[in-house]
Order: sequence, then structure tokens, then C-alpha cells
Amino acid sequence: MSKVKVAINGYGTIGKRVADAVSLQDDMEIIGISKTRPNFEASIAVDKGYAVYAPAEKVDAMKKGGISAAGTVEDMVKSADIVVDCTPGGIGEKNKQLYEKAGVKAIWQGGEDHELAGISFNATANYQEALGEDFVRVVSCNTTGLSRVIYAADQEYGVKKARVTLMRRAADPNDIKKGPINAIVPNPITLPSHHGPDIKTVMPHINITTTAVKLPTTLMHVHTVNMELEKDCTTEDVKDLFSKQSRIMLLGQGIGSTAEIMELGRDLGRPRGDMWENCIWKDSITVDEGELYFFQGIHQESIVIPDNVDAIRAMMELESDGARSVEKTNRTMGI
Amino acid sequence: MSKVKVAINGYGTIGKRVADAVSLQDDMEIIGISKTRPNFEASIAVDKGYAVYAPAEKVDAMKKGGISAAGTVEDMVKSADIVVDCTPGGIGEKNKQLYEKAGVKAIWQGGEDHELAGISFNATANYQEALGEDFVRVVSCNTTGLSRVIYAADQEYGVKKARVTLMRRAADPNDIKKGPINAIVPNPITLPSHHGPDIKTVMPHINITTTAVKLPTTLMHVHTVNMELEKDCTTEDVKDLFSKQSRIMLLGQGIGSTAEIMELGRDLGRPRGDMWENCIWKDSITVDEGELYFFQGIHQESIVIPDNVDAIRAMMELESDGARSVEKTNRTMGI
Amino acid sequence: MSKVKVAINGYGTIGKRVADAVSLQDDMEIIGISKTRPNFEASIAVDKGYAVYAPAEKVDAMKKGGISAAGTVEDMVKSADIVVDCTPGGIGEKNKQLYEKAGVKAIWQGGEDHELAGISFNATANYQEALGEDFVRVVSCNTTGLSRVIYAADQEYGVKKARVTLMRRAADPNDIKKGPINAIVPNPITLPSHHGPDIKTVMPHINITTTAVKLPTTLMHVHTVNMELEKDCTTEDVKDLFSKQSRIMLLGQGIGSTAEIMELGRDLGRPRGDMWENCIWKDSITVDEGELYFFQGIHQESIVIPDNVDAIRAMMELESDGARSVEKTNRTMGI
Amino acid sequence: MSKVKVAINGYGTIGKRVADAVSLQDDMEIIGISKTRPNFEASIAVDKGYAVYAPAEKVDAMKKGGISAAGTVEDMVKSADIVVDCTPGGIGEKNKQLYEKAGVKAIWQGGEDHELAGISFNATANYQEALGEDFVRVVSCNTTGLSRVIYAADQEYGVKKARVTLMRRAADPNDIKKGPINAIVPNPITLPSHHGPDIKTVMPHINITTTAVKLPTTLMHVHTVNMELEKDCTTEDVKDLFSKQSRIMLLGQGIGSTAEIMELGRDLGRPRGDMWENCIWKDSITVDEGELYFFQGIHQESIVIPDNVDAIRAMMELESDGARSVEKTNRTMGI
Ligand SMILES: NC(=O)c1ccc[n+]([C@@H]2O[C@H](COP(=O)([O-])OP(=O)(O)OC[C@H]3O[C@@H](n4cnc5c(N)ncnc54)[C@H](O)[C@@H]3O)[C@@H](O)[C@H]2O)c1
Ligand SMILES: NC(=O)c1ccc[n+]([C@@H]2O[C@H](COP(=O)([O-])OP(=O)(O)OC[C@H]3O[C@@H](n4cnc5c(N)ncnc54)[C@H](O)[C@@H]3O)[C@@H](O)[C@H]2O)c1
Ligand SMILES: NC(=O)c1ccc[n+]([C@@H]2O[C@H](COP(=O)([O-])OP(=O)(O)OC[C@H]3O[C@@H](n4cnc5c(N)ncnc54)[C@H](O)[C@@H]3O)[C@@H](O)[C@H]2O)c1
Ligand SMILES: NC(=O)c1ccc[n+]([C@@H]2O[C@H](COP(=O)([O-])OP(=O)(O)OC[C@H]3O[C@@H](n4cnc5c(N)ncnc54)[C@H](O)[C@@H]3O)[C@@H](O)[C@H]2O)c1
Repeated sequence: MSKVKVAINGYGTIGKRVADAVSLQDDMEIIGISKTRPNFEASIAVDKGYAVYAPAEKVDAMKKGGISAAGTVEDMVKSADIVVDCTPGGIGEKNKQLYEKAGVKAIWQGGEDHELAGISFNATANYQEALGEDFVRVVSCNTTGLSRVIYAADQEYGVKKARVTLMRRAADPNDIKKGPINAIVPNPITLPSHHGPDIKTVMPHINITTTAVKLPTTLMHVHTVNMELEKDCTTEDVKDLFSKQSRIMLLGQGIGSTAEIMELGRDLGRPRGDMWENCIWKDSITVDEGELYFFQGIHQESIVIPDNVDAIRAMMELESDGARSVEKTNRTMGI
Repeated sequence: MSKVKVAINGYGTIGKRVADAVSLQDDMEIIGISKTRPNFEASIAVDKGYAVYAPAEKVDAMKKGGISAAGTVEDMVKSADIVVDCTPGGIGEKNKQLYEKAGVKAIWQGGEDHELAGISFNATANYQEALGEDFVRVVSCNTTGLSRVIYAADQEYGVKKARVTLMRRAADPNDIKKGPINAIVPNPITLPSHHGPDIKTVMPHINITTTAVKLPTTLMHVHTVNMELEKDCTTEDVKDLFSKQSRIMLLGQGIGSTAEIMELGRDLGRPRGDMWENCIWKDSITVDEGELYFFQGIHQESIVIPDNVDAIRAMMELESDGARSVEKTNRTMGI
Repeated sequence: MSKVKVAINGYGTIGKRVADAVSLQDDMEIIGISKTRPNFEASIAVDKGYAVYAPAEKVDAMKKGGISAAGTVEDMVKSADIVVDCTPGGIGEKNKQLYEKAGVKAIWQGGEDHELAGISFNATANYQEALGEDFVRVVSCNTTGLSRVIYAADQEYGVKKARVTLMRRAADPNDIKKGPINAIVPNPITLPSHHGPDIKTVMPHINITTTAVKLPTTLMHVHTVNMELEKDCTTEDVKDLFSKQSRIMLLGQGIGSTAEIMELGRDLGRPRGDMWENCIWKDSITVDEGELYFFQGIHQESIVIPDNVDAIRAMMELESDGARSVEKTNRTMGI
Repeated sequence: MSKVKVAINGYGTIGKRVADAVSLQDDMEIIGISKTRPNFEASIAVDKGYAVYAPAEKVDAMKKGGISAAGTVEDMVKSADIVVDCTPGGIGEKNKQLYEKAGVKAIWQGGEDHELAGISFNATANYQEALGEDFVRVVSCNTTGLSRVIYAADQEYGVKKARVTLMRRAADPNDIKKGPINAIVPNPITLPSHHGPDIKTVMPHINITTTAVKLPTTLMHVHTVNMELEKDCTTEDVKDLFSKQSRIMLLGQGIGSTAEIMELGRDLGRPRGDMWENCIWKDSITVDEGELYFFQGIHQESIVIPDNVDAIRAMMELESDGARSVEKTNRTMGI
């Protein structure tokens, strides 16, 4: 069987990771990636053997910067079976026509609205919905992290109500433009935040209220999660439940902060030190007055990567069973 | 009537502010403050006209550093009616014997355990409890901020359950030793945190669960507050209720972060730019499915200062009515 | 004698401080300030009694936000003798025509190019140059700080060559948009930086080479200064020299960082905690192999304020002697 | 030929990297590493197949934490040919007796004094000095970075005088205890700093003066380097010279900060994203009035690692020629 041809439109934080993860699969391959500037990331893409494309109007500037493009983004899209759009939030929307015209399937990321694709995807929670579909949106890092734990708890105990405070890193580690440097920024100030409704694009029946702030840190988001559950359970039950989820990691062994989680990722020899799993502090898991509480760290740069691979598999019907796709992606990536 | 003689033992972040606030009152006066090092703070205390005392074993070092002490801490304590102990958390406990021996009343701060004083104090919530007492603990910045809003909501609507995430500044602005520089630190990791029980030292009947993290910022704490209320009420009701509280400030006018609150404090010409009030983002106040949500900023350096003044007044029985003491303190300080 | 009528165009970090400093003088007064948004700063300006003007197209929006403007910026400019333009860097240039048309004098800040005004001003170094002039630029915070020390050293010993590393705060304390959060940013990367040439707009004969970085801090800039001197001198000589300058403060007494300088400003009861002086660590002053070294902290928000007052005095010929203007400004501001 | 037996005493930031680098060599092997706490780093060491030892008094605590030690540190030392001591600065000194008693060679790191070993080592600058020696100190990250560039410039042009400002990250990325969070800290305040004399332990004839600050960042140090040179040269000459050094990397391609250097390390697939080379901004290299200027980033966590491997090779006389050892280390590590 020939491999599914995948193009990556927008090779930044998310795009470069999706490209590398796809390259590890035996049922799909990267046929090209797109860059808009001839920077070090473009240069490394060339070194990795990816065909580098550029928007038509940027081809010359790329060449001047030492990167000769394999063609335009349009060329790239035409030769693909499916495009993973990893352009910055809001830009992806403008590419829809291009994909429709070329008759290729497309995946967008969490920076785009649910309506653009019509299907919001998390491999754990709703793999089936994406089967054979043309347009799918892989939900944001925060929604991915929440979907995994809420889905697991809901399946086992029923989630009556979830209340989450999202403490978000304000910028990715390589982004030197965005602040704040020394402040806590409630964002949005009006409550509840839009993160709750975003969960409902994956699991419409969940009752969830969220509040969010932006913080002067670059490493990870942290969520404080509170869930009222339908069925009785103990702290130990929940630890057991979570320890069985393949995309959840329970932290112990002296890991006291997001900084130490990132150190773990580096020490484990993960590519780019990535932590694709929800990182839950095991000792924080507590059932108190029938309510579950815990802290989880979310590595925004990488948590959605395995779900992108699974989304391709579902949309291209390479695998009809979600659990089997997840298992395959995990094995190849080393999760 | 002669003024009540107040000594400040420990002239750091809290101590220097209590000294200045007491100096503004007509029913009490500062008879001395204690310093352990001859630094710029000691030098400014001298310039302000405070008698500077030092632990016996530090008197020489102070002199060498250019500050001739008015006497030892023991001397200072003896000449006072009441001591406000503002030494670092845990140190204050060791001073109890000294105060007992000298037969003076004493106030400790939130870094000490409730048991040390037996009475934990917040001027809004339980002024009466401190009337005529010898030993009182003014609760911490976080507990002070929570007491004010929970008391108000409880009086008006009844608080069935409160859930709060405390996002704490990791160090005061002048403290260059403590980190983290770039991480989110769940602290404590085991849940719920000790902040809930601390609220119960002031209002034992409140059902509250808290979670807390430390953040790489110095300016203020931020709380996300969730309360299930007994009685029905609307968003507007709560805005009205809070707008009537003298030690709560509702924020609007483009203030989007703790940084801008601190700018407000400076622009208002407040001493040291202090914000003694709970700083609640007005637009965040929301009643949703019968639950109240809002964000509040807590200026850890100054929020407890008016409550210290009120505690003196209660313990020395200068005023039997809490509301009248609060009103007087507010007026003199400019709250 | 009637007071000189001063208008402040742009009431942000610099503008609001210039307004307050001008208000302290007996030979000048604020006749209006301009704001573009009805935020808390505008509201405080009203409370302070300043007439608040707005660009014509913003008058309505201001009204909607609760601030009724006294008129348009054009109206304000017409009723002034001199305008202090404190709009963001690059905007000020566009206002020149307006000032020329109204026939008023104008001062710009360091964010504009030297050529706009033709005269770059520092009260210590070249007061005379501004006497009676129509257009003057008060140099930036970094150039102001360097001018003061280089002028003093040059007068006394002759400066053969200066080499300075400018470690710049990346954003002001109230600015939550700008990063970096966790990085050191050489800026500009090409060397030497433009800060050296900027010094020459004030003292053309100085041989100076500068390098600059941006840092994840909001409080102050720090300069490491190296000067080769013409005449021999000792460490003590330089300490003496600097201790005699009225706009230089020598730091000791346990002040080890920019954070503690800011604490000093607050403890001194300075408005907004401002430090208008160069803050030189006394123990860092060292003459080694005939070269002078020291560290200085520069409070970017406030260091240029006294120089703006002096510039008004020079341009309006209220005082022909620079030293006397400096002395008067110092006395009124509390320097 | 049997491999040289290397023990790592202290498996933290430096120790774990030295262990991994030694493991890549064909002429040496790791026979054990020592840990004091059973944390995630210990657990990963076990997974990597390293024999984990512990101080005698910690063996029990390690076992309780799930790590059964292979023996005591003393046992480990006895079975080694050479120990690389990577305990925290100041602790290494106390281990000297242990190594002497066991008759093993030892390497210390830059946190120890020069006198402890008597020889301070940098592979580029003075490989020969360590040949066959028993005790050697690999100099600190800052001194390693400076030695490489000063040695190269000195060999080619002669260095008359060097002036360097060291802008130091205040804490490693995984260290959440140390601040500052928002300040610039001149450190030491008295000038010149000790970093200059430390360079002289490697190259005694170099005339160098240094100043240093600590900054609220974790990623890398940045040096601004100024050198007066004996011989004439151009900007291009220096770019050529540095581009030929195997442990210097010239940066371009849009890399504007330490954050983007770290992103490069991750994208290159380096273990832990390490950058073992001096990272010099190519566009910053400038010869101006006969003086050389440039900015370099120093990845404190990893820059000394190749030099540790070379030091082992010199001390064990596995290779008498420094250039050949450097070449071999580079090849195996991927430099
Ligand atoms: N970074 C995260 O934390 C994160 C996490 C989850 C989801 N997402 C989502 O993933 C998407 C991508 O985010 P990112 O962080 O990778 O962004 P990024 O800025 O790191 O990368 C975007 C890439 O797109 C390229 N690009 C920009 N404009 C383009 C255009 N007009 N056409 C083609 N390419 C263009 C840029 O050159 C860059 O390589 C967004 O929707 C974002 O919301 C981001
Ligand atoms: N800083 C805050 O955010 C904050 C807020 C609310 C309550 N508190 C509580 O207030 C108390 C004081 O905290 P702070 O932040 O003002 O501390 P601080 O470190 O700023 O000041 C403590 C002062 O006590 C002096 N001191 C130290 N040891 C002493 C001793 N043995 N005897 C006498 N004086 C000694 C120090 O010199 C210093 O001046 C603590 O209980 C703390 O928990 C602090
Ligand atoms: N902040 C500093 O550290 C600092 C130090 C020295 C000099 N400067 C210089 O001072 C000047 C002002 O800087 P700032 O930091 O005070 O800026 P700011 O952004 O704090 O304030 C600028 C003010 O101008 C107003 N404004 C914006 N656009 C305007 C327009 N078109 N017309 C009229 N008003 C407008 C804004 O509302 C704001 O109140 C710049 O040239 C800057 O380079 C700033
Ligand atoms: N981290 C850097 O940036 C850096 C750079 C260059 C050189 N160095 C130097 O390298 C040395 C090690 O520094 P580090 O940053 O790796 O320290 P670290 O704190 O990361 O690691 C030290 C290790 O030693 C262990 N240890 C502590 N006490 C011990 C004892 N008594 N006996 C045995 N082991 C003990 C600790 O468990 C830890 O694993 C120091 O001399 C330091 O100055 C550090």
C-alpha cells in the first residue's frame, strides 16, 4: 500500500513537530512543508530532507536567503492527499478555498474556529467522528489536555460539573516579542472563559465552566481541575484510572514544577524535550466531599502532535478503530 | 487622652507600613521600631523620626553601620503598650515569652500559626473577637483578601461552598533571592491547600476548598473565586454589594492586569503605591448557574495594614464598634 | 510675572510625570494635557485638576468613556506658550507642523530623531544651547544617564574613550504586551549600537562605543561604564566627584540590585517611587590601570523629568544660568 | 585496549551530561554515577544502565525511594581509574582526600578553586598542561567560553587587553528556588569581577578586566566582548578566524536572542537541546578603531562537557595531541 501523502502548511512550533511525527509512521509520509521566511527552521527542514515550499510571493525572498523552494504552496497542496494547516491562528481560515479547489482533505489547529471544519477532534474522546471526513480541526493544547481527563472521568464516573482554572504560559519559549514580563493577566476578564465552550465542541454534553489567566512563563500551562462526579469514587480509584490512560503521565519523584517536567522531557531524550502526555501531579489527585481535584501541566508545544497523526489516520480511513490508531501513534513516537 | 504606645518588632515589608499607618492615627503612636541590619530601611526609619532599636547582640553591628540604636528590643518592648510583631514567619513565635514577661499585648502576622495567639483577626469579619484581648494574629494577605469577600457574600446571600485558586506572587518586589524565574509551581502539591482551613480560623462555619500555585511575578496575588450561594442573586446584585464595601475596589477603565493595578496605585499618589483594598475586576463578576465567579488582585505588601491598625484599636478597646474603627482607619489612610 | 503656559501632548509614562513636575514650579503651569483613551490615567488627570484634551476624532470616544474633553489637541496647543510632546517615539514628528502653525515652542523626547529639533538637550551638559530656542529634544533615559556622568568625568579628567554596555529593561512596569519573558536579546545585534552616536548629539567631541541588550525586567536599565581618562585620578577622587553632582546618587547600605533601588524610591516617599538621579553603586567605582569602571542604574520612567523642566526654563529664558535652573528644579522636586 | 573506567560523582546538570558524553567514546566508559536523592534523575540513570551509587548515609533513603544503590560513593571511587567530580561548587573540595586515598585521578568543575587541582583546563587553550596529571579542574562555563575566543584571537593577532561584561543567567532552567524574578543584580558589585583572574588560571599572560551581572533568565549567559588587538585586522578576518574554530558557532538566519539559540539546539535534535559551542552572533563581530567587539551566548549547562571528555583523555594519556582529542570528542558528540 502506498503511503498517504501529507503536506504541512506552516512549519512553526506545531508544524515542525507534526512533520517529524508523521515521518515516523509507516502509513503516511511528508511530501512537503511550507515556510514564509528563510530562517534557521527552514534551513533545518532542508537538512532533514523535507521539500520546502513557499507562498508564491515569497519564493524569491526565500532564494535570496539561501533556501530554494521546491515550488509554491499551491504546488505543494496539489500533490498532497491531506494538508495539515499549522499557520498561525486566524490565517488557516483563508486557506480553506485553496484546499477545496485542490480537492485535498485538511486539518486545522485550535487557533481556528470550530465552524471552519465543523468537526473538532481529540483522539481519545471522539476519533470516530473524523472517520472519512474532509475537514477536521484538532483542538487546542488546553482543550486537548482537558478532553483527555474529562473523557476518562466521564466514562468511568460521569462528570456532573467541571470547573477549571487555566494558567497559561503567555508565550512559547522561542517567542521573545510577547509579554508580560512581570504580571498576572486575567484573560479573558469576562467570565466564564471561552475554553469551556471549546470542550463542548468535542463532548457537547459536558457541563464545564472555565477561568483563565496569562502568566510570565514560557514552559507549560497548568490547570487546576475540579470535577463533581456522578458516581462515588476514592482518590485511589482516580489514580488507578489515570495511570491506565496511555496519554496521561503521573508525576512523582521530586518533580515540583513545570520546570522540572521540562527537565524530565530532556533527560528522557525526547525530541525537543517534548511531553506529549498530560502531566498530572500524582499527589495532587484528591477526592474531597465527592469532588475530584488535581493539577496538570500541559506542554503546549507538543501535546496536540499525536492527535494530529491520529486525525490523519481517521480522515484517510487508514484505521477505523481509535484505540488502535492511538496505540500505533504512541508506539512509533515513544509515548 | 494619651495615645496608645505601639512598638514595631521587625521593620520589613509589613512592619514599615504598619509604622507609617499607625503614625497617621490620633489615638496611637509609634514609640519604636526594631531593625536587625543597618541598611537603607534603617536609615530611612531614623530620618522619619522613629526610635530604632535592635536585638542586644546586633547593637554594635548597627552602630558600625552608622545607626546608633535607641536601645535593645527588650527595652523597646518594655516601654510599649502593645507590640506589632512583623518579624519573618516562624520567628514571631519565639518572641511570645518576651511579650508575656513584659506584660504587653501583642499582634502577630499571618506567617505565624493561629494557635500562637488563639485569635485570628480580620477587621471586616470578626472585629468583636479581638476586643480587649492580649494576643491576636492578623491573618495573611491571602486570608485577609478572602475574608473580606466571603464575609460580605455570606452575610448577604449565605455561602454554601467556596472554591478558590490562589495564584501567588513568589517573592516581594524587593526580594531578589527567591525564584522561580520561569515556571509554575503547584504549592502545596497535595490538595486541598492550607489556605481553606486558614479562612476557618476567622469564619469557622465557611465551607471552602483552595488550591495554590507560586508564580514568577512579584507584584500581586490573583484569586479566581467561585462561590455557591444559598440565596438567588444576579451579577448586578453582587456588583452592588461589593461596590458598597469600603475595602473592596472595583476595577474598570482599561485595567487589565496586576501591572496596571500597581500603576494605578502609583498614579493615585498612594504611599509606596500601595493598594490596601481587594482589587476586583468588575467585568469578571458573574453569576452563572447559581454560582458566583470573579477575579481579584491582592497586594500582598499592603492589604493587611489597615487591619493591623484596627486590631490595635480593638485590643486596646479604643473603639468597641468595628465599623467605626474601619471607617476611622480608612479616613486617615486615604482608603 | 505670569507663569509660562505648558501643554503636555501625550500623557503616558513620561507625560504624566512632566505634568506633575511642572505643577511644582512657580514660573510655569500646566494649561492642559492630552489623552487618546478614557482610561484610569485620564480619570486621575481629571481628579488632579488638569484640563484634559483629546485628538478631534477621539473626543466622542472619550466622552463615551466618561471623560468630557476640554477641547481638541489643536485647541490646547493654541493656548500654550510651549508644548512638551510626550507621544510615543515616532509620533511626535508628525506634530511638528501643528506646533509651527500655532507658533508655539516645543520639546520632544528621546524617541524622536535629533534632526527633528536640531538641538539635543541635557541640563547638566548643554543647558546653554537651548536658551531661547523654539525646538529642543530632551535626550532619552539612557543618553541622559550617560551624559551626566560623562560630562562630569570629562570636565574634571578628560574622557579619552568610553565603552558602555547598556542592559535595558525590555518594557515599562505597566506594559504587559512586550517581552521577552525568558531570554537575553542583543539589540541591536550589529555593533556598535546607536547609543554612542546619540551621546554625541549632546557632546560631539566624546569618543564612545556602546553595546546594548534587552532583558526580561521592567524596573531599570543598568549600564556598565568604562572610561579611559586623560588625567590621572584615583577611585576616591571619582567617588568625591560623583558625590558632588546633584543628579547622581551613590548607593550603599545593602542595596544590591535594581529591585532594592526601587524599594528605596518607595520608602523615600517619592511620587510614584521615582528615582530621578543616576543610581551609581558606590562600591563599584574603581580606577584600574588608568581606566574608570562602575555600574549605574537608570530609572527610565523618571530620569528625564527634571531635564524637561530645565529645558522649558532655558527655551522660555526664565533662567539664563543652567546651574541655577537645575538647583531650582531639584529643590522643588525634592532631588 | 581496555577502556578507561570513569566514575561521575554528583549526577546533576553537569554530571549527567558528562556521563552521556563519556558513554559515546570508545576509549572510556562509565562504571558508576552517584546520586544523593532518589528523584527522577536517579530513576533515568538506572534506566540508562548506569550503576547508581550513593553516599553511605543515603543508601537507605535511596532504597526507600525505589533506587537500590550499587554501593557507596567510596566503593564507586575505588573501582574507577578517574573520577569526574560534579558535585555543587565548594563540595568537591571535601572529596579530594577520598580520591587521594583511593589513588584515583580526579577532575573538578569550575565551582571549585584553582588551587584545589593546581591545573585549570580548557581543551582549546592548554590541553598539554593536563597530560598525565592526577588532578585537574575544568574551568567554569564562562571561563570556557572566554578561553576559546581569547585563545583564538591571541594566537592570531595578540590580545593587548580584553574587557568583558558577563550577563549571567541567574539559575539553571530546572532550578525553581533561585531568583531574581524581576531585577538586574550587579554581582559582584566591586569591580573588576573575579572572572578576569579566572581566565588567567588558563592563560596567565592575558590582560583582561571583567564586570558581571545576574539576570532573571535561565537559558544562557551572554558576553559582550571587547578586545584591543596587537595586529591589525578587519571584521572579515575575525569572522573567518572564528568560523574555522570547531567549538565556535556563528549565528545568523534570524536568530536574535538566547531563546532562539535554544530553539536551534532543540530543532537540531541535540541531546537535551544542548549547545556545546560558543554561539557568536556573526553580525555582531566588528572591528572598530582597532578594537574587536562581539556578542556571544554561552549555554552554561553544556559548554564544558566536551572539555571534560578531553581532560580525561589528557590525564589518562589516551591522546597526546590536543587537536586530535578535540576532533575525536567533536565527532562522537556531533559538534
Ligand atoms: N504554540 C502553541 O502553543 C499551540 C498549541 C496548540 C495549537 N496551536 C495552534 O497551532 C496553530 C499554529 O500555531 P504555532 O504556534 O505553530 O504558530 P507559529 O507562529 O509557531 O508557526 C506558524 C508558521 O506558519 C507560517 N506562516 C505564517 N503565515 C503564513 C501564511 N500566510 N501562509 C503559510 N504559512 C504561514 C510561519 O512562517 C510559521 O512557520 C495555530 O492555530 C495555533 O493556535 C498552537
Ligand atoms: N510580605 C508579605 O507579602 C506579607 C503579607 C502578609 C503577611 N506577611 C507576614 O508578615 C510577617 C512579616 O513578613 P515581611 O514580609 O514583612 O518580612 P520581611 O522579611 O520583609 O521583614 C521582616 C523584618 O524582621 C526583621 N527581623 C528578622 N529577624 C528578626 C528577629 N529575630 N527579631 C527581630 N526582627 C527580625 C528583619 O530585619 C526585617 O526587617 C510574616 O509573618 C509574614 O508571613 C507578609
Ligand atoms: N518610557 C520610557 O522609559 C522613556 C524614557 C525616556 C524617554 N521616553 C520617550 O518619551 C516619549 C513618550 O514615551 P512614553 O513611554 O511616555 O510613552 P507612553 O506610551 O507611555 O505614552 C504615550 C502617550 O501618548 C498618547 N498618544 C499616543 N498616540 C498619540 C497621538 N497620536 N497623539 C497624541 N497622543 C498620543 C498615549 O495615549 C499615551 O498617553 C517617547 O519618545 C519615548 O521614547 C520614554
Ligand atoms: N550548572 C552550570 O551552569 C555549571 C556550568 C559549569 C560548571 N558548573 C560547575 O559544575 C559543578 C556542578 O554543578 P551542577 O550545576 O551540575 O550542580 P547540580 O546541583 O545540578 O548537581 C550537583 C549534583 O551533586 C549531587 N550532590 C550534592 N551534594 C553531594 C555530595 N555531598 N556528594 C555527592 N554528590 C552530591 C547532587 O545530588 C546533584 O546531583 C559545580 O562546580 C558548578 O560550579 C556548573
